[in-house]
Amino acid sequence: MEHVAQLRIALAQTDPVVGDLAANADKLVEWTRRAAGRGAHLVVFTEMFLTGYPVEDLVLRSSFVEASTAAVEALARRLADEGLGEIPAVVGYVDRADLAPRVGQPKGAPLDAAALLHRGRVVTKTAKHHLPNYGVFDEYRYFVRGDRLPIFRLHGVDVAIAVCEDLWQEGGPVAVVAEAGAGLLVVPNASPYEKEKDDVRLALVSRRAREAGCALAYANQVGGQDELVFDGDSIIVSASGELVARAAQFAEELLVTDLELPEARFGGLGTFQVDAGDGTVITVERLELSAFPVEPYAPEPPSIAPHLDDIAEVYSALVLAVRDYVAKNGFQSVILGLSGGIDSALTATIASDAIGPDRVHVVMMPSRYSSEHSLEDAWELVNRQGVNARIVPIADIVDSFEKEIELSGLAAENLQARVRGMILMGLSNQHGHLVLTTGNKSELATGYSTLYGDSAGGFAPIKDVLKTLVWKLSRWRNAQAGRSGAFLHGFAVPPIPENSIEKEPSAELRPDQRDTDSLPEYDVLDRLLDDYVEKDMGSAELIAAGHDPALVARIIRLVDLAEYKRRQYPPGPKITPKNFGRDRRLPITNHWRETIA
Amino acid sequence: MEHVAQLRIALAQTDPVVGDLAANADKLVEWTRRAAGRGAHLVVFTEMFLTGYPVEDLVLRSSFVEASTAAVEALARRLADEGLGEIPAVVGYVDRADLAPRVGQPKGAPLDAAALLHRGRVVTKTAKHHLPNYGVFDEYRYFVRGDRLPIFRLHGVDVAIAVCEDLWQEGGPVAVVAEAGAGLLVVPNASPYEKEKDDVRLALVSRRAREAGCALAYANQVGGQDELVFDGDSIIVSASGELVARAAQFAEELLVTDLELPEARFGGLGTFQVDAGDGTVITVERLELSAFPVEPYAPEPPSIAPHLDDIAEVYSALVLAVRDYVAKNGFQSVILGLSGGIDSALTATIASDAIGPDRVHVVMMPSRYSSEHSLEDAWELVNRQGVNARIVPIADIVDSFEKEIELSGLAAENLQARVRGMILMGLSNQHGHLVLTTGNKSELATGYSTLYGDSAGGFAPIKDVLKTLVWKLSRWRNAQAGRSGAFLHGFAVPPIPENSIEKEPSAELRPDQRDTDSLPEYDVLDRLLDDYVEKDMGSAELIAAGHDPALVARIIRLVDLAEYKRRQYPPGPKITPKNFGRDRRLPITNHWRETIA
Repeated sequence: MEHVAQLRIALAQTDPVVGDLAANADKLVEWTRRAAGRGAHLVVFTEMFLTGYPVEDLVLRSSFVEASTAAVEALARRLADEGLGEIPAVVGYVDRADLAPRVGQPKGAPLDAAALLHRGRVVTKTAKHHLPNYGVFDEYRYFVRGDRLPIFRLHGVDVAIAVCEDLWQEGGPVAVVAEAGAGLLVVPNASPYEKEKDDVRLALVSRRAREAGCALAYANQVGGQDELVFDGDSIIVSASGELVARAAQFAEELLVTDLELPEARFGGLGTFQVDAGDGTVITVERLELSAFPVEPYAPEPPSIAPHLDDIAEVYSALVLAVRDYVAKNGFQSVILGLSGGIDSALTATIASDAIGPDRVHVVMMPSRYSSEHSLEDAWELVNRQGVNARIVPIADIVDSFEKEIELSGLAAENLQARVRGMILMGLSNQHGHLVLTTGNKSELATGYSTLYGDSAGGFAPIKDVLKTLVWKLSRWRNAQAGRSGAFLHGFAVPPIPENSIEKEPSAELRPDQRDTDSLPEYDVLDRLLDDYVEKDMGSAELIAAGHDPALVARIIRLVDLAEYKRRQYPPGPKITPKNFGRDRRLPITNHWRETIA
Repeated sequence: MEHVAQLRIALAQTDPVVGDLAANADKLVEWTRRAAGRGAHLVVFTEMFLTGYPVEDLVLRSSFVEASTAAVEALARRLADEGLGEIPAVVGYVDRADLAPRVGQPKGAPLDAAALLHRGRVVTKTAKHHLPNYGVFDEYRYFVRGDRLPIFRLHGVDVAIAVCEDLWQEGGPVAVVAEAGAGLLVVPNASPYEKEKDDVRLALVSRRAREAGCALAYANQVGGQDELVFDGDSIIVSASGELVARAAQFAEELLVTDLELPEARFGGLGTFQVDAGDGTVITVERLELSAFPVEPYAPEPPSIAPHLDDIAEVYSALVLAVRDYVAKNGFQSVILGLSGGIDSALTATIASDAIGPDRVHVVMMPSRYSSEHSLEDAWELVNRQGVNARIVPIADIVDSFEKEIELSGLAAENLQARVRGMILMGLSNQHGHLVLTTGNKSELATGYSTLYGDSAGGFAPIKDVLKTLVWKLSRWRNAQAGRSGAFLHGFAVPPIPENSIEKEPSAELRPDQRDTDSLPEYDVLDRLLDDYVEKDMGSAELIAAGHDPALVARIIRLVDLAEYKRRQYPPGPKITPKNFGRDRRLPITNHWRETIA
């Protein structure tokens, strides 16, 4: 029978700031102190925690990589100086490989690295082996491949370190763990949120634990960074893949867990090479921090955070994304146009939940085509939420344009939207508010929006939310009235006027306009968009899937032509595989039109 | 002594349309007919000619890849049906590899392929081995690696095929050519223009020919595609690396060249494997189209197109980019704001040269701060070029905004720029003109522009042109007065008013404003921007290079903060390594600030 050794590990599920090495280092020291205070034997930070993730082309600047490597060395010393040298810390940062430059290799040969800090020293280093280069990831652009697997003995347990994508792809370090043998695999991650990704992630972590033949501790970043939202959801599973502990979604948390792990059987230290099963060779490095198990102690019960349902999860992601974008870009407040419709009502509510209604400014900008109920519904939201509000009528401004240039039809409709965009931008420039755009994904997909009009702004909270989901989120949020929490301002009444949810959608840019004048019903449209945009189906497949052939032809054309508008759209949080950001890259000049069979 | 065999080869330096497989196929047939008419024994088209290049995420759509593979088969038959089956044609297209799906591999395993068409059949296929994933290239996202090297015997000469990047990186197919032996290496390319790249390219092609030990024929795409401009400049060099023939820059051309090549000595056909020297193995496939040399004939003298000087080259690139963007996106005309300053004057001139002054519409939009000379200088350009012009004063419109919201300082300046942007967009929507923005790279870099104001538009011709280069291009263009050609409308007088070139730059958004109120002199600024933006120098390096430390700190801050504006800027032609397009990707939310030592 195997001897068991106890280990208390702390996963630091935190929200770093991209590029702020000093602040991230301070946070690392603070959280290490908290972990030590909880009696942890090991603390694991997330992927590239010290630099933040993703840093994009900053890694190609040599001064940045030098700052990162200097910071990790300094951190090791500082932890020891501050009395925290005894607790080993695993931390992600950027390093570089010692490779001669060549065409096709990222400048400076950067590594997505992780270091083990202990007693004032960087004891060992490793780097991500599998580089993701799909979806939002461009890591062949940024990094060269790591080829090491450190396994350090800590209180009699062999602990291996791998980085993020190394869990997702076959072969490489995780396969080598199985061969080399370890009691625990710790994995720093920066894995962005997507709807229902938490389920995929748990299944994956369980499978890899079984393949590696050891417990697995998965520490994930949390927080918003431009279009990405990291959801945390750090996980610990046993060697048989059973869930042991799990951190909250969308919140910082120090997940401290007592584990009983097999005591290491092999005494041999040093390095040896193992075929990684993916055409590469991994160098395993065995080292020892402490040979003998800790004295037996009474473990604390593990913590498994309750998980959010699918709608709550999306809502929390949007709120966190707005909160972090505002804070990390140094804004104090936001401004948006409130029309009385559901898109701007939901956006205002997300903003109120993110930064508090006292920091949310809304502007009502009625035109000659605005209906009475629009202004009423907008005021109703203002009254329910207590946001700052003003009315700026646009009729006279529109008239002043039309005195100088003759505009009709769509050009006249666009003018109204643009006057509104300019008012918001003017107030933003004057008062320093961040402009939130209120367009949803169904509009953005089909180009049913005005460039420099309703698309004007700094952040687009519901850019990746289809219209049918806008309604679902609004109803869900109203049902939370009376509750308060990290993502719910404590509104006593439903914050969104029921009328805004129930009424028929209209842009109100001409008399009696309805969205259905130009677009099909949203449940039909959204299903088609999902198949075309997310699943990349061609027209034959779309028709085979039951979509109306004429509608397929029309919507494909609308979506493809709108690429030019989308390129100039503000960033917004990604909640699906394709948010029209860096996850979907199509030419503007694009003559690809499928013939419908 | 080696026996020699003659071969007349035709390189089809053409401008395909991305996604228009039918039009590209028609063009291929037409140009093959021209090549046959010239007596060529072989015609070589460019990389991914059949689909256009780059197609970005279209390759991840299975219907697109299926259309490409079907089209290449159909083309082989069609060439034979049209009596062109005897002349072998090498053509680039998209194919797919027969690989099982796995995480990390592009969906559908697409290949950047080239096919050899002959007598109604696709005789052989190959695909790019080295995938560029730097600068504007993301090919690990799109393609899997090819691992073949076809060598076909044509009239007694062994002709090898490699694709584009395989020339740029070490090892792979070109290294294998040396080992396998060939008389000629033909290389389809889609290599975008950058200033002075033609010199680099010739040196590279010469070096690879010497390494491969055979003549090398390099066929490059020409034309504009969104931000990329392909410059043609197809090249043929001898086995010793001497230039034999060269096509024009920025123009379609069928480059027909008679070569004397070594007659093949080996009789063995079939496949064998060679270590490619880059950790991979390449399968060489030898096949035979025709065993014996052609009857000796009198060769035609080779053609070497005269090369443009550096300024003419940039100017031609900008004109071609505008012309293709307008045409390929279905516009008939362009519109832009003409201020009397140099940026809009140069942009208007590029537009006139691209599509003719009769299709260029300019709008003069004087404000209360516009000086007398501005309107005069603008009218002078209108008179010299004969573009369509109108005046739309903005004062009353600006007043109508200021009646509703109080704006001062920068917010009031931005309002004026935005009113102008809205007028242009309104006229664009009403009349179908494409809006050209007139901002230069120095402004774009430092954020010295107004979001949704002067940055509003569909294409930004001088987005990648620093202010000092704006002046150089303007003086150069004026010096061409009286000449006409593909990139020069035949203006009898200098098309740009001298006053626009000579006067001090001002945005004229407040009384007596000068650019130097906010920015250093442009020669100082542009040198600093070049070092920071193009060369990615850190602040210590910049100071060591002689830049003023205070200015370095200020400009770095301006450049970094403007990332958010740049993300919403229209596309524009790339002429440098970093045009603020997909070649430079930085976070918006970015706290990286270097400490100045």
